[in-house]
Amino acid sequence: MENSIPLPTRDWPKLEKGWVWLCGAGPGDPGLLTLHALNGLKQANVIVYDALVQNQILDWANPNAKLIFAGKRGGKPSPKQRDISLQLIELARDGKRVLRLKGGDPFVFGRGGEEAQTLVQNNIPIRIIPGISAGIGGLAYAGIPVTHRDVNQSVTFVTGHDQNGETPHSLNWPAISQGSQVLVIYMGMKHAEKIANELMLAGRSPNEPVAIVSNATTNTQTVLETTLKMLNEDITNSDLKPPAIICVGRVVLMRQVLNWQDLMNGGLPKNIDPLNRDSLTEVS
Amino acid sequence: MENSIPLPTRDWPKLEKGWVWLCGAGPGDPGLLTLHALNGLKQANVIVYDALVQNQILDWANPNAKLIFAGKRGGKPSPKQRDISLQLIELARDGKRVLRLKGGDPFVFGRGGEEAQTLVQNNIPIRIIPGISAGIGGLAYAGIPVTHRDVNQSVTFVTGHDQNGETPHSLNWPAISQGSQVLVIYMGMKHAEKIANELMLAGRSPNEPVAIVSNATTNTQTVLETTLKMLNEDITNSDLKPPAIICVGRVVLMRQVLNWQDLMNGGLPKNIDPLNRDSLTEVS
Repeated sequence: MENSIPLPTRDWPKLEKGWVWLCGAGPGDPGLLTLHALNGLKQANVIVYDALVQNQILDWANPNAKLIFAGKRGGKPSPKQRDISLQLIELARDGKRVLRLKGGDPFVFGRGGEEAQTLVQNNIPIRIIPGISAGIGGLAYAGIPVTHRDVNQSVTFVTGHDQNGETPHSLNWPAISQGSQVLVIYMGMKHAEKIANELMLAGRSPNEPVAIVSNATTNTQTVLETTLKMLNEDITNSDLKPPAIICVGRVVLMRQVLNWQDLMNGGLPKNIDPLNRDSLTEVS
Repeated sequence: MENSIPLPTRDWPKLEKGWVWLCGAGPGDPGLLTLHALNGLKQANVIVYDALVQNQILDWANPNAKLIFAGKRGGKPSPKQRDISLQLIELARDGKRVLRLKGGDPFVFGRGGEEAQTLVQNNIPIRIIPGISAGIGGLAYAGIPVTHRDVNQSVTFVTGHDQNGETPHSLNWPAISQGSQVLVIYMGMKHAEKIANELMLAGRSPNEPVAIVSNATTNTQTVLETTLKMLNEDITNSDLKPPAIICVGRVVLMRQVLNWQDLMNGGLPKNIDPLNRDSLTEVS
């Protein structure tokens, strides 16, 4: 492929001085960045970014932009949300063109709503740029569709821990368990054992398929397939590290045929129906 | 803003002859297209697209590409899934570089998993390109975050009708209702009355805030704010048309401060706390 493709001609929004664009960087693969995000990267003179934003994406920033890291890294305490918000306000008031770049989507368990509210209420003009959330795009890179007509008509996204690092106490696991055949758990590795136990207590089968996708869509993506019963033991025996997405439900089985990254690397397509439906040849 | 920004230099994937890229086009705004999607548009010589894909996006296709419409439009029957899949197989076998472009994300109620499975099992090589789903990005353009730390630790995405156009019979509304404080309903306008009734029967308050976002992220985006009780009446009295996303839950209230499109057009920021938390000035 040619190495440079011109971004289409269009009246692209201008990132003005004193503005903050609150922008999702997607799950990791720089190719999953949106055009709006790229437009922001090229214009910002300050970029405040999270731990989950890949270096390759930051490499695309305006070379004169100042890069400010605002994430948690290596066990060190993360900057408080209050401090990040105040910093964004200060930068904007200082006349900077600010891109606030968060992993995934800023409004999916990302506290972007709080940051945006603080900015608005301090009279800082904002734009919101959604990003691809790892719970959807990350699973797609593992060959797992979060919905499949023969499995689920609903899917529930859950955060695996609250602001104190504990399993959120307000989660109603029995209802969640019965409400959606497919569950997607963000930041769930630490409490995987507890979560699996809650789901089995609520009636989900111990043999239900589970996938854990670590570093989804990056060069170091790793996928572990297991079951609810074996989840904790298999995580313990693995080298898997956060960030990871856990998917519970029969859609995980679709990976047997839809692992397109494996197929691109020479894997052979399997002519099976992972969902054991009546007919394989029927293209319904 | 300058009208043309070069896409970053990188070893972009090549869309080879005989391949199909199954690609999400996002909710509407062409700026929410991913870089991978743009790369596909530039290389494809056949693009098979859905009704929800905006013309502005198709304008960016390779000028020599053949555009094939494969969606439902104006009450006419839509092509059968079987026929679309067979057409994709035929095009690939004919040595075309095929981009299958679907609105939103192909794996979120989009039947992309089925299309991909059929392709793989007919030995057609594929790549999956996720897109921004309207249930997240569309709501963000209305100023509604699908999660907020003070409202929900889980969010459930539901499809409002099954393949026969009926409310999916397998949905467990009481469990869904109790499992997530925030519900995002795709394709729910037709059965809005039934859905609202199910939720109220399951114990959700008749006064619970609801937003309907029609044509999200496009120039014709329209937002209706209402309550569960008034949902059907307000839809009936409105000019709202599908496609629309319905969001149920207190995050809808955040729109009072986060309606950034209104603010960009001269609206004044409101110094209120839509969630009535203890303190507004506290930036926690």
